[in-house]
Order: sequence, then C-alpha cells, then structure tokens
Amino acid sequence: MLHFDSDYMEGAHPAILERMMATNLDQTSGYGTDEVCAAARERIRAACACPDAAVYFLVGGTQANAAVADQILRPWEGIVSATTGHITAHEAGAVEACGRKTLPLPQHDGKLDAAEVRALCEAYWGDENREHIVAPGAVYLSHPTEYGTVYSLAELEALAQVCHDFDMRLFMDGARLGYGLAAVGTDVTLADIARLCDAFYIGGTKVGAFCGEAVVFTKPGLDDHFFTLMKKRGALLAKGRFLGLQFDVLFDQVEGELRYERIGRHAVELAQRIAEGFRAKGYELAIDSPTNQQFVVLDDATKERLAEHASFGFWERTPDGRTVVRFATSWATRPEAVDELLALL
Amino acid sequence: MLHFDSDYMEGAHPAILERMMATNLDQTSGYGTDEVCAAARERIRAACACPDAAVYFLVGGTQANAAVADQILRPWEGIVSATTGHITAHEAGAVEACGRKTLPLPQHDGKLDAAEVRALCEAYWGDENREHIVAPGAVYLSHPTEYGTVYSLAELEALAQVCHDFDMRLFMDGARLGYGLAAVGTDVTLADIARLCDAFYIGGTKVGAFCGEAVVFTKPGLDDHFFTLMKKRGALLAKGRFLGLQFDVLFDQVEGELRYERIGRHAVELAQRIAEGFRAKGYELAIDSPTNQQFVVLDDATKERLAEHASFGFWERTPDGRTVVRFATSWATRPEAVDELLALL
Amino acid sequence: MLHFDSDYMEGAHPAILERMMATNLDQTSGYGTDEVCAAARERIRAACACPDAAVYFLVGGTQANAAVADQILRPWEGIVSATTGHITAHEAGAVEACGRKTLPLPQHDGKLDAAEVRALCEAYWGDENREHIVAPGAVYLSHPTEYGTVYSLAELEALAQVCHDFDMRLFMDGARLGYGLAAVGTDVTLADIARLCDAFYIGGTKVGAFCGEAVVFTKPGLDDHFFTLMKKRGALLAKGRFLGLQFDVLFDQVEGELRYERIGRHAVELAQRIAEGFRAKGYELAIDSPTNQQFVVLDDATKERLAEHASFGFWERTPDGRTVVRFATSWATRPEAVDELLALL
Amino acid sequence: MLHFDSDYMEGAHPAILERMMATNLDQTSGYGTDEVCAAARERIRAACACPDAAVYFLVGGTQANAAVADQILRPWEGIVSATTGHITAHEAGAVEACGRKTLPLPQHDGKLDAAEVRALCEAYWGDENREHIVAPGAVYLSHPTEYGTVYSLAELEALAQVCHDFDMRLFMDGARLGYGLAAVGTDVTLADIARLCDAFYIGGTKVGAFCGEAVVFTKPGLDDHFFTLMKKRGALLAKGRFLGLQFDVLFDQVEGELRYERIGRHAVELAQRIAEGFRAKGYELAIDSPTNQQFVVLDDATKERLAEHASFGFWERTPDGRTVVRFATSWATRPEAVDELLALL
Repeated sequence: MLHFDSDYMEGAHPAILERMMATNLDQTSGYGTDEVCAAARERIRAACACPDAAVYFLVGGTQANAAVADQILRPWEGIVSATTGHITAHEAGAVEACGRKTLPLPQHDGKLDAAEVRALCEAYWGDENREHIVAPGAVYLSHPTEYGTVYSLAELEALAQVCHDFDMRLFMDGARLGYGLAAVGTDVTLADIARLCDAFYIGGTKVGAFCGEAVVFTKPGLDDHFFTLMKKRGALLAKGRFLGLQFDVLFDQVEGELRYERIGRHAVELAQRIAEGFRAKGYELAIDSPTNQQFVVLDDATKERLAEHASFGFWERTPDGRTVVRFATSWATRPEAVDELLALL
Repeated sequence: MLHFDSDYMEGAHPAILERMMATNLDQTSGYGTDEVCAAARERIRAACACPDAAVYFLVGGTQANAAVADQILRPWEGIVSATTGHITAHEAGAVEACGRKTLPLPQHDGKLDAAEVRALCEAYWGDENREHIVAPGAVYLSHPTEYGTVYSLAELEALAQVCHDFDMRLFMDGARLGYGLAAVGTDVTLADIARLCDAFYIGGTKVGAFCGEAVVFTKPGLDDHFFTLMKKRGALLAKGRFLGLQFDVLFDQVEGELRYERIGRHAVELAQRIAEGFRAKGYELAIDSPTNQQFVVLDDATKERLAEHASFGFWERTPDGRTVVRFATSWATRPEAVDELLALL
Repeated sequence: MLHFDSDYMEGAHPAILERMMATNLDQTSGYGTDEVCAAARERIRAACACPDAAVYFLVGGTQANAAVADQILRPWEGIVSATTGHITAHEAGAVEACGRKTLPLPQHDGKLDAAEVRALCEAYWGDENREHIVAPGAVYLSHPTEYGTVYSLAELEALAQVCHDFDMRLFMDGARLGYGLAAVGTDVTLADIARLCDAFYIGGTKVGAFCGEAVVFTKPGLDDHFFTLMKKRGALLAKGRFLGLQFDVLFDQVEGELRYERIGRHAVELAQRIAEGFRAKGYELAIDSPTNQQFVVLDDATKERLAEHASFGFWERTPDGRTVVRFATSWATRPEAVDELLALL
Repeated sequence: MLHFDSDYMEGAHPAILERMMATNLDQTSGYGTDEVCAAARERIRAACACPDAAVYFLVGGTQANAAVADQILRPWEGIVSATTGHITAHEAGAVEACGRKTLPLPQHDGKLDAAEVRALCEAYWGDENREHIVAPGAVYLSHPTEYGTVYSLAELEALAQVCHDFDMRLFMDGARLGYGLAAVGTDVTLADIARLCDAFYIGGTKVGAFCGEAVVFTKPGLDDHFFTLMKKRGALLAKGRFLGLQFDVLFDQVEGELRYERIGRHAVELAQRIAEGFRAKGYELAIDSPTNQQFVVLDDATKERLAEHASFGFWERTPDGRTVVRFATSWATRPEAVDELLALL
C-alpha cells in the first residue's frame, strides 16, 4: 500500500533522530532557556537575515496560530483571513476561544487579494459606526496555502503595504513553509518573508520534525511577554530543548544549503512528478499547485480503483459528482513510491 | 557540576529512543488515530484496571490541566484547588484564560483537606445567594503535590466522597504520578486512582518521556467531544503517534513491572538517599517528602558553597533568612551523582 | 429639525413613565425575583401562547445576543448568521468574546436562506475531518432584519426544520420584533415564533422602553442556570423590577390589543407613508421594507439639501456614487413630522 | 412590614423621575454621545476635581467591574482583591469570564492591607519563575467594602503608593460610594479618590438611580477604545442618555451640596441610628460600620421574632450558632421606619 495522505505520516528526519541520540543525556534547563534553543534561534535569525528577530518554539500549528493572533491583536481588533484559511476553517475555533474574531474574505486559489483587504479596511475606517465593529488589526495568510499555492513576492508586498497603510500586522502561517520556499517558480525567500511580515512561523511538524513550529517576531516589542502568553495558552514545552534541537538540525547547512530547504526541494520535486504523471495520463488537476500537495479530480470508479493500492486525502466533492483528492509528498517520500503510484494510472 | 534542578533536564528514557528509531519510517494517520496510540491506550486501560476508560494524549501539563478543567466544568462552575496547586499558582492563568475560575483552599503540605472542601461546598449550597457565586464543580489535586507529598488512600477516598456528595468531578494532576506510585509508604495504586477520580493524567514529561501527558477519563460521557476541545485549545498533536509511542514504551512490562513504575522507583530511591544523607549531616528538611523531590533548608553560606558544585532549584526564603531549595531526581539520575552530592555535605 | 435617525431617540412610552411614577416607592426584592417581573413573565407567556416558557429580562440587545449564544451553544459549536447579522457585523465581537464562533452565510435582503443553512450542515456532517471544525449548533436570525425585512412563516418553518434535522437551536433576535409583528403583509405571529424558535427575545429598547429585552426560552432545560450566566456576563440588573415593569406595561392590553403591537403598528404605518411619499416623488428605495425602517437612495445634492431640515442615518455608499440612508420611525414619531418630511421632497 | 433587606429596593430618587418626565420626548443620539451625558460628565469631572477624567456610563456593577478589569489589565496580569471582594466572591466569575485572574489576599473588615499587597508584589517580582505566574497588574478595592467599612485616606494613599511602586493600576468599586463619602468620620473625598485611583466608579444603582454606574478613568490613555470594549462586553446602552440623565441629577447641587452626597448622608444617619438602637438594647454588632449597612448578631429566637415585622438580609452563621444579619438603609428609607424597627427590640 502506498501512502500519500499527508506530509506528517512518518517520524522525523534521520538527522534529527541522530542528534537526539547523541545528546539524550545532556542536562539542560527547561522551557526553551537552554543553549540548544539559543543556537537554533541564531541559525533561524541568520537564515532570515533578521538579526534582531525574536524566536519562540511552539509545538503545533493551531497552537501557534492562536497564540500569535492573541499576542499581536489589540483588544478591539480581529484578524483578516481567507475563508479557507486554516485559522478560520479548520482549527475548531481556536482563535475565537481566545476571544478574538476572524474576519473572512474570499479566497482566490486559497489566497487573499490585497485589493480586497484594502477595501475591507477602507470600509471599516470610513464607517461612522466603526466603534461598534471589530477592527481589522492583522492579516493572516498561509504560505503555501491550504491549496498548495504560494504568494508571489509582488503579492506579499502588496499585502504588506496594505498592512502598513492601515496599521495592521502581517502574520504568515508557515506550517508548510519549507515547501513554499521550494515552490516551482517562487520568487519569495525567507529573508523576504522576515522583511515583510511582522510575525510568521516556520513549520517543523510537516517538514521533517516530530513536532514544532518556530514563531518569529521580526519587529521589536511585538513579542512582549509572549513567554507568559505561551504558558497561559498551554503552549510552553517543559523540555524546550527538544524543539530547539529539531530546528537546529533543520537549519543546519548541508552541502551548501539549509537542510530545511533541501527537505522542501525533495518533496516538491516528487510532487511535481506526480502532477506531471497525472496530467500526462489525461487527469484533471483541480489547482495548479507548485508545492508538495497536488489536488486531482477523480471519478468514483477511478478513485476506488486507485484506493486499492494507494491512500490519499479526501478534499471535496465537485458539483459534477466527482471527487477532489489530495496527494501529499514529504521529506520522507521515496521516488520509488511515486513511480509505483504513477504506474497505477 | 552536578544537576538536581528538576526532573526534566534530560531527553527521554533510552527505550523510547530505541522505539523511535525502530519505527521512524512507519506511516501512520494523524491526530492520535493510529495503531500506536491505540496500543498505548490499551496498556493504560489495563494498568488502570479500567477497561472503559477514554485516554487522550496531550503534550504538556498546563495544557492538560486547562483542557480537562474546561471539559469537565459546567458553565457556572469553577474548580477547587489548594492555593499551591499548579493550576492556580504557576500556570499563568491558563484555567482563567478558558473563562474558568479556580476556587482556592488552604494547602496542608501541598494537599487539600477533604473536610475543608466539604465546608466550602456546604457554604455554597447553604448560601441563598449562591446563584451569584461560582459553584464548586470539580476538585483539582496534584499527586504528588508541588511539595512532593502524596495523598493516602483514605485521604483520596474522603475527597472522592465529598465530590460524590456534591456532584463534583475529581481531577488529579499526575504530572509526577510515576513518583507518586513509587512513594515511600504509599497505599495508592493506579487502579485506586482510576476508581476514585473522574479524570486524571499520567505524566510523561517528568517521568521519562520527551513530552506527553496521558489524560484518562474514567466515567462514560465525560470526554464527549474532547477531541475537538483539544483542537480548540491547541492541544492536538498532528503526529500523535509520537505521544502514543512514548506511553506504549512507558507502560510496557519490564521484569514483571511497568517501566513507568520502575522509573518512578529508581528516582524515589535516590531521592530518599539524598534526604537521608542531608538529615544524617544535621540538615533540616522543610517537608517530609516520600517522592523524588526533596526540600532542604540551607543557610546562605552553605547554599553558596554547594552551588559551586551542584545546581538545584530555588524554592522560597524562610522567615529566618535561610532558603529552601529543591533537589529533584529522575529516571536519569545516576547513583554516582547522588554519592558525589552527599560527599559535598 | 426633524429626526428620523433611529428608533431609540426618545425616552419611553408615557404609559411606562406613569407606572414608574405610581410604583416608585414600592419595595421589591432584587435581580428579577419580584412580583412585577413575575407578572410581566405571565403576560409574555400568554402572548406567546407558550405557558411553560422561561422569560428573563436583560438590558440590551448585544448583551442578550451574546448571553443567549453562550447559553445555547455546546462547547464545540458555533452559531450560523447572515453576514449582515448584527451578532457578527455590529457587536464588536461580543459573541467571540465569549469564546464562540459565528459561522457566516450570505444574506438575502438581510435574511438567511434555509437551503444554504442546510447545505452548510450537510457539508459539516459529511466532512470526515469535522472534528477539526466548529459545528453548526445554532442559527441566529433577526426579525425584522438589519434591512427592515421580515421572514415569512414558510421561511421560518423551513429554518426551523433545518435546525430540527441537524440538532441545532433556532434563535431569533427580536430587537425590533414589535415592528416585525406589525409588518405589512406578515403572516408571522408571536405564537409562531415561540413555537418555531428555541430562544428569542422581545425587544423593548427600540419599541417603547427605556431599555430592556425579554429573552424567552421555549424549550424546557435550555435555560438551565441562565441566571448565573447572566450574572457572569454582567447582564443581571439589580433593580430587575424596572425591566419587568416596562414589559408589564408593553404587554398590557389596550383596546383589545397588546400595547406592544399597537406601538409597532403606529411606527410601521408612518414608515410606510414615508416610503410611499418618497416613491411618489420618484425616489429609489434600496429595499422593499415592510417595517419601520426605510432605506432611500439619495444623490449627494439631495442628501445635503434634506440634511438641512432632517436627520437620518447613513447606511452605505452605492457603487454609482450615491448614498443609501435610513429613515426610522418609532412609537414616538408624530404624523406631523412625517408630513413635514415629505413636504421637503 | 418593614424592609431593610438592601439599598436597592425602591425605584429612583424623585428628582430623577421628574427629569425623566420633563425630557421624555427630547430626541437624542444614542450610545452616550448625547448632550445629557456630556453635561453629566462635566458635573462628575468637576465634583472629582479632575478636569481631564474620562467618564463612561455603564448599567450595573458587575458589568462595570469586569469591563474595567478587562480594560486596565495587560494580557499577562491579574487583579488583586480581598477574598471578600465582590469581584471575586459574588460576581459568578465575571472577571474570569474575560480570561482574567483575580489574585486573592486576606480581608480585614473587608479591606486590603497595603503591606500585604506589597508583600505579594515583592514575592512576584522576586520569583525567578515569575513568567509562569499571573502578574499583579491592578488592585481592586471596594469603598465602602462589602462589610460597610471604609478606607482612611492614609490607607488609600498607602495602597496607591504600592500600586505606583509596582506599576499597578488602582481600581475602586464605588457601587456604594455615596455612602462611603458620607461615612462617619471619613477623611476621604471624591477628589482624593480621583487623585489616588486610576479608575473607579460612582455607583448609581444603590444610591438613588434606577440603574447606572459612572466609570471614571483619571489617567490619560487608560480608557483607550473603552467604548468598543463596552460594546464587546454588552455594556453599551443604546439610550445612553437615560444613564447620563440620572447622574446629571445626582450630581446636581442642592442647597450647597451634591444631591449624591445628600442622599448618602441621609442613609448613613439612619443607619447609625439603627446601630445605636441595637447597641443600646445590648445587641452585638458584628462589625463597626460607619456607613449605610449594619451587621447585627441575632440568636435564632430573636431573629424569628424580628422577622415577623421586618425583613433584613442573611449574612452568615457564626460559629456559636447565631446569625449575622444585615440592615441596609438608602436614600428612600423613612425615619419613621427606623423608629418602628427600633421599637421592636
């Protein structure tokens, strides 16, 4: 059986396990105050070309999204998100559980449109009754999005400009950031992201770690007392060094590039081979995704036939009665598995 | 330098790492729906002699405390805790961040007194204005407590009786449960805990795991939709199998006992040697702790002298100008390190 | 200067003031436990033909909306609302401040479409990952809506059916219910509302009271501990009799009808005269409203000219550069004022 | 039957009703933006000798307490209160429902002790693990307290000094402030309170109004976006002028003093007559209260006998099996009623 359900089906990159073995009996202080975390923070700051960035290690994405939203919003503000944004669509109301409102806007292949964000802000600021309304205080975007698409540098700059114009903070959910950095044709670098976003996180869970997301605040002061907020939100890990270690390994250099980038590249290459294989056999792809997730439209017979030999994710039904399914690759996907999958078509 | 600061200074028990290595490339479904978690749940149910228990794996203690409190309390209820209870004293208001109130009662060596809990309930139910007051809906206790002490079976039964009499749920924070089960002279077993508590958790982080707490609901229905609440509280791990694996290893049998118990016993034995060593040299112990934490009263000169060779935790100043410090042992503490410590006295 | 800005510009209906004068020195118990509140509850139950209804008096609409949403939702549920619903658009995030999510659906003249609610529920229940998603647990509708429109009985029954089919509660915001009951051509009675909704409130503030909304729970048990929730949400008035008194007066019989209905009828008749007057002079009405709010499209010159003699509410700009403004009537609107307004056209 | 149950048993001071009659058909804008509220704010600023104070009108005390606590606390802070403080003891967890923690300290006749507050702050700031702990960010006190006692000027200054030293805000719950200003022997004026507190409120509900509490922020910026927070907490009254009117009347001058002070003086004088009457007959008073609440210890036989002719509030049972009951006077208490009460002894 082949498994392409998601990018979090295996354990962790072997280099992480090796480091865990090698350092298991080291004794460190808790809660991320140790040297391992300090080293990982330095590597991340360097990779982001943002020497003053504040870096915190959290365990998971929903936790990171809710904690950051809670941190960066003022009491009267909410956070703008595409309707398909994970924060508003698939996190069981975690942001609202912090007493915060998500402000939905239409999605375009999973992305926000800067002009629509601007229009929402103009409507808010032009409304005489705006003190009765939740103010747009931050913009949430995922990169890659839930549809595997990525923002171009121009699109990110346009969103950053809107945020700047309306005193909003820009927050990027990078749960799959490694695959976004390796996306086909992308012109967005980690340094661009650090320059344009006020906060973002570098996903570990889906990019080779057992768990862990590195939250980066790029502007001074924005992380004020975030340590305590993490504790308050149950997001502070006692053995923080376990998260630091993983990012220290992921952001280590391997043959001239970050291991994190290398992992991303591997998965994206295989995902593109999957896409090409499907297309070559005449299958329809629901979205033109340049990253590690591919969304294929299958009729029921084909879906059932494939499901005998491969597992994949259910995405949605199409109006014409077919199904969109997702094939995801990861750092752990073997090229042979892709060959076997394509041989099934 | 010797380190006795806490019981979460090292990585994880070697058996856990071995299992991680052996299963790293296994592919499993996410969010705790996998077979590894299923197996670990079975082992825990068996160890608790509670075949119908619902078991969930969370990452950390504060997260577990807040999520369980939020789950088991009705909207008009709060949770009773000793003033020193971790939930009210050292979790940055995590329970309150869920909109819930902690109801403090005096601590007696870190423990609640059943008669005082009963009095609080009687006062509440006897108050004509009780609809203006947060109702006592659950009782939180830690076992061992923050002072290393443990409840006797009779004490637990008395608390369970009060809970039964006033329709409250009994919740045990077992962040250090392994050391409580191995406490000197204890008459409380895991089966007793499962029988008497409505919910409790088995601490992994401080008892040999990298992270992880196994929340056990013993009564049917009490965990209704807890999966979604975990998601809402950012407490649902994508690679849930990583938590399941650790508990599967901890609750494996080793030479006729659970590895979890064995780990506890090791640490408690060494902690008792520390206690005896200090006492033998005429040091005062602040508390008579039968578990893996020992609280020693030091004058400033002695404290500084010891601190040159060993690290330990600051606990509190005494009225007479001395300091209570904590020495903690763990699964990883070497007997030689204890010898070296005692040789310093 | 003529004022048509809103329906809450004056004090209260004279009959209310008279009763306040007459009973001012009566001594009553607090928090709504008095005989005046009891009498008002009886009148409301009778008017609703719902003898077992539980009735609570709250001070304002946002308070009532948030408190009821908090009461009727289970922890994993959210509340469906039209995007223009007051609860999600104009209450500063009060529902989210209770940790609850609003689930927006498109509005159709301010109304929800039962088929779209059904589709949302089917999508939720058909989603394998629904445990990661906020469940639709209640449906919020306003009647009249924020656009002055009303639901037909068939539309309400369709919504109630969807709620029944998917175990959701139906909640009606009746801030302007008096004007809805008197709407031109409506076939919906108070008894229908009580029969179809699980909870609703009868607006006082905008229908002749100084303040006050009567929340009605029609199903047994749904109001469990609502008194304490009101206290917790700051919605419990010490001198509750002041709210009870107002509803006792509003639900008194005057010449064979409820004073509440009479007030509604007066305002709707005048609003319809305004609508007809504008239409007769060739003005465009943005919405065909059968209630006490009329939305007229004005070009800038006309708007400025009218504004010299009359005040009205800003609603929104149209794409073609004109403005929609609102004229609202109330129990206190004088027919002469309407004549004067129409003379300005 | 004589009623001394509470100070909120009647309607409102006749002068308020008169003004309501006189202005009922005036048309004003909503939400406290009207001229009546503006005038009342001016009167309050003048009475407080605080020309720059920001004044907001809320409906009730619990609402005011929770909204102000939510406003003045930073995300990582909690609010210190005596264990008997209304905010922590009798408001159904309203502060916690805002996600905030109350930090209890012992009460001394209902009052906080500045030295104990200082010790709590020193313990917090001296704790190496303080980032795991809710920071003391504000001090809540009630004046008069729940026991009818008042702070001396020196006590208030000491508390203000502690707040200043530890960057905390001082918040006074003045639900019964009118009776505190008129307390026997008090040396605290409204100007003192405005000078020493960062926020406080002037209670209307219990001092002659139908409802209403005037929240005063004395420091610039502390009320930033409080209007929206009020809306979010359901504490914004549509017909705000109804609250403004009441305070405009209460803070009007009558024969050289504020009506508010005059009301307080009336009630306190009668309460002192009650106290003296009981003492003269040999009754024990539980507390030496200089305000409008008197707490008398009654044996069961006497309590039952008195209860046949007078109603009063249950307070608590004493260890020796007697009952403390409360007699409260108000603006509306008639001297003859006091005479009749004392004749019963």
